[in-house]
Amino acid sequence: MTERYLEDFAVGQTFRSGQLPIDAERIKTFAAEFDPQPFHLDEAAARDTVFHGLAASGWHTAAVTMRLLVESDLKPAGGIVGAGFDEFRWPRPVRPGDELRVESEVLEVRPSRSRPDQGLLKVRTTTLNQNGEPVQISIGNLMVPRRPV
Amino acid sequence: MTERYLEDFAVGQTFRSGQLPIDAERIKTFAAEFDPQPFHLDEAAARDTVFHGLAASGWHTAAVTMRLLVESDLKPAGGIVGAGFDEFRWPRPVRPGDELRVESEVLEVRPSRSRPDQGLLKVRTTTLNQNGEPVQISIGNLMVPRRPV
Repeated sequence: MTERYLEDFAVGQTFRSGQLPIDAERIKTFAAEFDPQPFHLDEAAARDTVFHGLAASGWHTAAVTMRLLVESDLKPAGGIVGAGFDEFRWPRPVRPGDELRVESEVLEVRPSRSRPDQGLLKVRTTTLNQNGEPVQISIGNLMVPRRPV
Repeated sequence: MTERYLEDFAVGQTFRSGQLPIDAERIKTFAAEFDPQPFHLDEAAARDTVFHGLAASGWHTAAVTMRLLVESDLKPAGGIVGAGFDEFRWPRPVRPGDELRVESEVLEVRPSRSRPDQGLLKVRTTTLNQNGEPVQISIGNLMVPRRPV
């Protein structure tokens, strides 16, 4: 895969990632460092919470999503640099044993108003589990360089 | 700190966190697992990128923000459970040696339309570095239980 400049992207393009499994041990160690709440730390303690069992921190899901996105064919020149999100949500929990993958779709491509060498790419990124159910949906804006003339 | 139910929150309340330092080593190991791009992995490789030097992955900043928020006095009963974000952005990079802290402000408190035992809290969360400069700004919606009658 070569890297893509703004001119190489078009509305409607889609990109897929490989898969990444999420195990109970990493759910707990991630949560111990970054999101120490009972439903992310311990199966028994998680049972009586809103999650009814151990679930990954949403930030763990977000981090794994980024890994899958970086390794997908999206490959903007200069890297994946997020300018912010228009939407970001976790429609269902990620459970131990889930296998996650990512589908992204280009929604908008436009040159930057302030920086003539840059553009913005609006991308919907959906993280799916092994049953094809979305576990994270985001609409983000990426900074992408324009092709040098 | 006791836990707070929906009825204990009011628009305009603010909550502050402690501080957490970000070092170069954890920036790199976080990135190696979740965001393997040159500007997060290696000082020399980062120099010629849009970041002009090593910067933490935005997801590392987001994860540290969650840690600070969980340990702050916000303390909704049932834990901090995000239903999604209306806004989410990183206005400037986090650098090795930065000390992060979080300020959150309640923007809206409302009972859930579909679940009589739950409500939604709209919270602006700003992550600041040691110079008081915002490095992450989000407006998120948290699910908070109503006080049992």
